[in-house]
Amino acid sequence: VGGLTVLRAIKAVLPDLPTVYLGDTARLPYGTKTAETIAHYVRQNVAFLVRQGVDSVVVACNSASSVLNALGDLGVPMHGTILPGARAAAALTRNGRVAVLGTGATIRSGAYGRALRQLVPALQVVEQSAALLVPLVEEGWWQDEVTRQVAWRYLQPVQQAGCDTLVLGCTHFPILRELIGDLLGNQVALVDPGLALAEELRCSSGFSLLEPVGSAERKVAAKERWFCTDPHPGLLELAKAILGKEQQVSWEFADLAGEMAADLPSTP
Amino acid sequence: VGGLTVLRAIKAVLPDLPTVYLGDTARLPYGTKTAETIAHYVRQNVAFLVRQGVDSVVVACNSASSVLNALGDLGVPMHGTILPGARAAAALTRNGRVAVLGTGATIRSGAYGRALRQLVPALQVVEQSAALLVPLVEEGWWQDEVTRQVAWRYLQPVQQAGCDTLVLGCTHFPILRELIGDLLGNQVALVDPGLALAEELRCSSGFSLLEPVGSAERKVAAKERWFCTDPHPGLLELAKAILGKEQQVSWEFADLAGEMAADLPSTP
Repeated sequence: VGGLTVLRAIKAVLPDLPTVYLGDTARLPYGTKTAETIAHYVRQNVAFLVRQGVDSVVVACNSASSVLNALGDLGVPMHGTILPGARAAAALTRNGRVAVLGTGATIRSGAYGRALRQLVPALQVVEQSAALLVPLVEEGWWQDEVTRQVAWRYLQPVQQAGCDTLVLGCTHFPILRELIGDLLGNQVALVDPGLALAEELRCSSGFSLLEPVGSAERKVAAKERWFCTDPHPGLLELAKAILGKEQQVSWEFADLAGEMAADLPSTP
Repeated sequence: VGGLTVLRAIKAVLPDLPTVYLGDTARLPYGTKTAETIAHYVRQNVAFLVRQGVDSVVVACNSASSVLNALGDLGVPMHGTILPGARAAAALTRNGRVAVLGTGATIRSGAYGRALRQLVPALQVVEQSAALLVPLVEEGWWQDEVTRQVAWRYLQPVQQAGCDTLVLGCTHFPILRELIGDLLGNQVALVDPGLALAEELRCSSGFSLLEPVGSAERKVAAKERWFCTDPHPGLLELAKAILGKEQQVSWEFADLAGEMAADLPSTP
């Protein structure tokens, strides 16, 4: 579901890019799972997207992006959120203290810390897990007093460490940008890795609007397709709230679980 | 993870019963998914357990129990939480007003309401989704002020409706029994369907301690086995907190996802 904030960012800078979206709603959230299980799901999702004819994959999830290095070559260019987010944060910080707010899986991976210190070895990085903000966003409590209290508990160490830059290191968190900004005040810059990724895609030649390389051979017929692995009734509502009413979405069911189970005996 | 509260209840009344536990940690939570996806996962889990030699399956999850009727015959006796929970609540209420607190999936299914009204047609049933209590329990905030506030928001309609009995209709909620009891006061009886299920198992002849029918032919060699589908580092800690320190657990990995993916191309 959070991936929609990344798609929204990409659509904003590349409105004519044909896209195939896959929301793995049958197995979300990823942020509470191990790197091995997440890697396994990413492989399956990428194989599905490649079968839909995509020629490039954006991993619109920080937890999934944090295991990207372990995946090896999946036969298609992969774009994660970690590097763009780290690059944007390293460019923004003035006092060299950067905080990252993420899921348990993203923080445990240490991927942002590694990427940031590779860019600027002297950076101080505070990596803070903020697991409960994900279900709070999914419950729709975006401007809620409870969400504010929970967020503040996670943000206190960030403020105490004197960080001047915070990476919103989970695709759900840009939805709480205003609430988080209010809590930290405007002396702390907020980085949305989805926006940074979209900006990098726009600047890379393969996605350029001026020079749509290879667009004639694109195998994607429709301009947009939207898949999810579990057609949850709450999904449509949440998707509408994230994407805005003007975005028309017709969801298709990606039966990843069904395919996977084809050779499993359903009865003993 | 929540299934451990049901296992704990069963162990309390049937300490000598050999058990095989499967926690589907790779795909939790079930409570935010559709009935179809949950049913699909239950089928796979039951097939796995049958391969381990069990002769009876306890569905230690209310969301999964709520789809049991749609599953058909899986070749093994299945025991869900809904009927025992409904029976206990119907027996306890004096004013005929019963509330059920559950996940989105359980409440949407209407399974408790149907079961309760089948037992006592005149019962008034308030079915209340309480989705956020699940991640709050998993985050370990069992006695937290935030959890108290969230719980109170869900419980207010229960109190306003004048219910004298509340079904803790998610296996995570017995962990919050004290907190919920404090909020509602002792004029409201709390029903733990896991306890009710354990009591029914104890009374049913096949599980009787006095007459261990068929125990000689049991295919389960070890007295206890513990499987999970994702060996998450937080799982062990949470399991210990739920089961108590005296319970020794050695987790084994159930590679359901790996099996399922065996025939999926991992690269295009």
